[in-house]
Amino acid sequence: MGQKVLIIGAVALGPKVACRLRRLDPSAHVTLIDRDNLISYGGCGIPYYVGGDVADLEGLYSTSSHAIRDDRFFETVKGVNVLSQTEVTDIDRKGKTVSVRNRATGEEKTLEYDKLVLATGANPVVPPIPGADLPGVSVVANLHNAKEIKEKISKGQVESAVVIGGGAIGVEMAEALADLWGVETTLVEMMEHLLPTAIGPDMGLIVKNHMEEHDVRILLGESVTQIVGTPETGVEGVKTNKRDIPCQLVVLAVGVRPNAVLAAKAGLAIGPHGGILVDNTLRTSDPNIFAGGDCIELTHFISGQKVPMAFGSLANREGRVIGTNIAGGNAQFKGSVGAFCLKAFEMGVASAGLTVAQAKDAGFDPVHAVVVQADRAHFYPTNQLMYMKLIADKTTRKVLGVEAVGHNGDAVKARVDAVSAVLPFGPDVSDITALEVTYAPPFASAMDIVNNAGNALDNILKGKNKPIDVADFLKLFDEAKAHVLDVRGKPESQPFVERFGDRWVNIPQDQLAARISEINGNGNGSGQLCLICDTGPRSYEAQCLLASHGITDTVNIQGGYGMLKKSAPDFNNPA
Amino acid sequence: MGQKVLIIGAVALGPKVACRLRRLDPSAHVTLIDRDNLISYGGCGIPYYVGGDVADLEGLYSTSSHAIRDDRFFETVKGVNVLSQTEVTDIDRKGKTVSVRNRATGEEKTLEYDKLVLATGANPVVPPIPGADLPGVSVVANLHNAKEIKEKISKGQVESAVVIGGGAIGVEMAEALADLWGVETTLVEMMEHLLPTAIGPDMGLIVKNHMEEHDVRILLGESVTQIVGTPETGVEGVKTNKRDIPCQLVVLAVGVRPNAVLAAKAGLAIGPHGGILVDNTLRTSDPNIFAGGDCIELTHFISGQKVPMAFGSLANREGRVIGTNIAGGNAQFKGSVGAFCLKAFEMGVASAGLTVAQAKDAGFDPVHAVVVQADRAHFYPTNQLMYMKLIADKTTRKVLGVEAVGHNGDAVKARVDAVSAVLPFGPDVSDITALEVTYAPPFASAMDIVNNAGNALDNILKGKNKPIDVADFLKLFDEAKAHVLDVRGKPESQPFVERFGDRWVNIPQDQLAARISEINGNGNGSGQLCLICDTGPRSYEAQCLLASHGITDTVNIQGGYGMLKKSAPDFNNPA
Repeated sequence: MGQKVLIIGAVALGPKVACRLRRLDPSAHVTLIDRDNLISYGGCGIPYYVGGDVADLEGLYSTSSHAIRDDRFFETVKGVNVLSQTEVTDIDRKGKTVSVRNRATGEEKTLEYDKLVLATGANPVVPPIPGADLPGVSVVANLHNAKEIKEKISKGQVESAVVIGGGAIGVEMAEALADLWGVETTLVEMMEHLLPTAIGPDMGLIVKNHMEEHDVRILLGESVTQIVGTPETGVEGVKTNKRDIPCQLVVLAVGVRPNAVLAAKAGLAIGPHGGILVDNTLRTSDPNIFAGGDCIELTHFISGQKVPMAFGSLANREGRVIGTNIAGGNAQFKGSVGAFCLKAFEMGVASAGLTVAQAKDAGFDPVHAVVVQADRAHFYPTNQLMYMKLIADKTTRKVLGVEAVGHNGDAVKARVDAVSAVLPFGPDVSDITALEVTYAPPFASAMDIVNNAGNALDNILKGKNKPIDVADFLKLFDEAKAHVLDVRGKPESQPFVERFGDRWVNIPQDQLAARISEINGNGNGSGQLCLICDTGPRSYEAQCLLASHGITDTVNIQGGYGMLKKSAPDFNNPA
Repeated sequence: MGQKVLIIGAVALGPKVACRLRRLDPSAHVTLIDRDNLISYGGCGIPYYVGGDVADLEGLYSTSSHAIRDDRFFETVKGVNVLSQTEVTDIDRKGKTVSVRNRATGEEKTLEYDKLVLATGANPVVPPIPGADLPGVSVVANLHNAKEIKEKISKGQVESAVVIGGGAIGVEMAEALADLWGVETTLVEMMEHLLPTAIGPDMGLIVKNHMEEHDVRILLGESVTQIVGTPETGVEGVKTNKRDIPCQLVVLAVGVRPNAVLAAKAGLAIGPHGGILVDNTLRTSDPNIFAGGDCIELTHFISGQKVPMAFGSLANREGRVIGTNIAGGNAQFKGSVGAFCLKAFEMGVASAGLTVAQAKDAGFDPVHAVVVQADRAHFYPTNQLMYMKLIADKTTRKVLGVEAVGHNGDAVKARVDAVSAVLPFGPDVSDITALEVTYAPPFASAMDIVNNAGNALDNILKGKNKPIDVADFLKLFDEAKAHVLDVRGKPESQPFVERFGDRWVNIPQDQLAARISEINGNGNGSGQLCLICDTGPRSYEAQCLLASHGITDTVNIQGGYGMLKKSAPDFNNPA
């Protein structure tokens, strides 16, 4: 008889380990253990089930050839035993056994292992607010939650819903509720912007504005203090520090924490964020015990820090590594750059590496460029603007992170993936200016936005391009500490000239060289001279021209009018 | 007065050098010289102008903010002088002058330079066949050709057209003619498959079948021997080595050659393929003369060989490097992996690195995997199959190339770009299994196709997965040297079982372990046992299972039925 392998947890990583291992070592005796009766499901698909893109719950635990991934499937097709509805109560590392209890029958037994795999995932954080346990308050942790939420809505019991948390799951759930079901949806996030762990405030603002266009109310910098209702009526509303919101459904999406209870109890090493610590072969501090997926901490390739990374994609890749290694191989999983993407209505959002805030926290001196450019040749009819940010360390020029949003999600993914893929190789900004990506007019510009993001950041780092972010510009302008030189054509700039008078001057780029003498620099009481064009390149060119005439104290609004319009629709269209 | 810089050639690279240089060195006196009156156009956009996606020719030489990029534009906006319709007749390197002649007025003069840039591009190859100079025969080299072709069609003078050459321009032009205009279009290619320098025969076959579905007739392995017609009537038809094809338009798209005439005449070093040789700073053998774009040879990062690479994207990036270096910087352009993409009707095609044939030519021992998988989560409604090939060297496991086709071009681009971006870093197959790309169900599978391509190739290299390509299988099967074990469900396999009798046996995967004894191995006269499933993973799993029962001499049809269906529609639907 071959080696006995027990795997605790049968979603994502667990099944991947089991199947990989069985293929490499057909003699292995592999058992998947899970608390739930539903296993091996695509948890990331829950918002699409709730929102109706996936019609049946089975869709989330079927294979691409429509086989249901249940106990029988794993037993007959994969040769893997499954103990579902079974809780592991204890691990005896010395005796190499685990104690289990069947949740349906109460039966307890002890199972031996040669190798043990912890795939215990993460638990949703339930915030310590009164009412969090009321009927109608749900986390998004498993298919039972998903079913409950969808049933409640489809029975017509939900007119209004509140999603607490503006991370990926919060955003996806808000879309699901508002889009298909027309539920009046409010998303409440404590931080000042959406998706704060994945993107910066500027990109977050674009996502927020887009979601608001789709009738999701977004409340930022606001905390829920109480969920109101009774055990009989269920949820009736939510109180924040600023207001009351009536609702019949509350979705808690404030994040997840690694589930390392069993590991900790067994005395395995635990990391600074409560996840299980593993080496590059994904072994825990006990060489006979592997761990992977949402319950571990990984090395972040950019910060060098150990952090939990709850991504189904990492779990699957880690699962293959663990399966290989249990079968006697020597596969490595060295870390992650936190590659992230998400759909928010018609918008794609993607990022990798660190945000500016995270980079500062990690001790870097981040400098960033924001570039706005068409996602295909500007003459190709389906082109749409994409909004991209590239971040590097000022001293070393090493790339720290990338973020992008745009209306063609696959195109957004393409740019971020290209950068994400090279990040583990430690690229500097010059590597991004030279990043070789494919080009044809239906899919890209000859100078792709990703290269231009590198170019812009290179120019900024070299002091040629002196940028100002839209948010900083808006603040200065609002405080009357800035004036604008708009180098676009007269038709585009006219509404702003009319509205702001001599605070918004228009000299089209082709007249600029001849009209340099008209330029009001700074220091005459009108404040910082800010240059603007459509998306940034012409105002940068104007900045170079002005500098060559001795007017050096200008700043170039990053992403130009394109970024301004997406960031501040009110500025663009005063009510 | 600043340095005098002359740039010969004002499309793509030339203008990029000029503008970058002027921004970095406002004192530079920069002059663009071009034979043509139309400059700085997007030549790659010509098929989209001909096909109507781009309505007006101006669209191809306008900026994204709709300014026409003509002589005046460069002079007033960019501060760059333009001598259009001007031919450079000679370079005097010792005297640092060039002789020019105005093609309109005949005026000749001599211009001095401190730095000279050769951006002379490539010339379309005109094959030495009788009739190639007839009216109605056109290359696709500039906007005048484009206009001529479009006018001829829009005047109703073209019922049938022949495109000679199945490279990128040939495919794009064939689409343009057939799609918008309903012109009866035949594409003739000497090689045995489409896009032979960019992708392998298997991917080429998918593109061919797709184009045929869109009513383009594709003739492979066929050479045009004569273009028929008279100077008065123009083209009347094309003779190949196999047939006569009546037509009123012939598009020559058999490739381009670096235009290095001036460089060679001036005694600059020329490479093995006739392109100008440059170092990593893009200086020619004369340090005062730079060159870039289609007229040079670049180091191919994978083969290490010097090759011309006619891509607008490379030209633009090289242009920035030359501009930087003339301004006193030290930017580098080290080479290329030949990243390529193309739209063919509703299909996207992309590749990077070497094809299998190119890899063999370059001295490698290439091994490849073909993977077919949905481009997003298989439960997400808009998912479509993507077809991907990953190639590595057998000994070193270094990745040599990647190819993909699929119906969502941006998604295809995303996968190839991620691999393309890391290729210069010298990844091995394990780096592709671990390649970190973004994941969310609307945009990817948890185990992305790019990772699965790495996984499959890893399994092949380790001898676990013994593959056979669809083309090889079809040949064997056709010669009655193969039989099939189909592990799909009964409904899917039934038509083939009925058609092929005991040469096509169905045992669904979930019954396979119990029915091992029914398996006919090889050596009993029925030939090679080939395993098939939908797309490959289940037949691989079956292969592992059979091997564990001593049946080791099986092969797994790469890409499964998905690949078979796309490769051989006739096999799937016998007429």
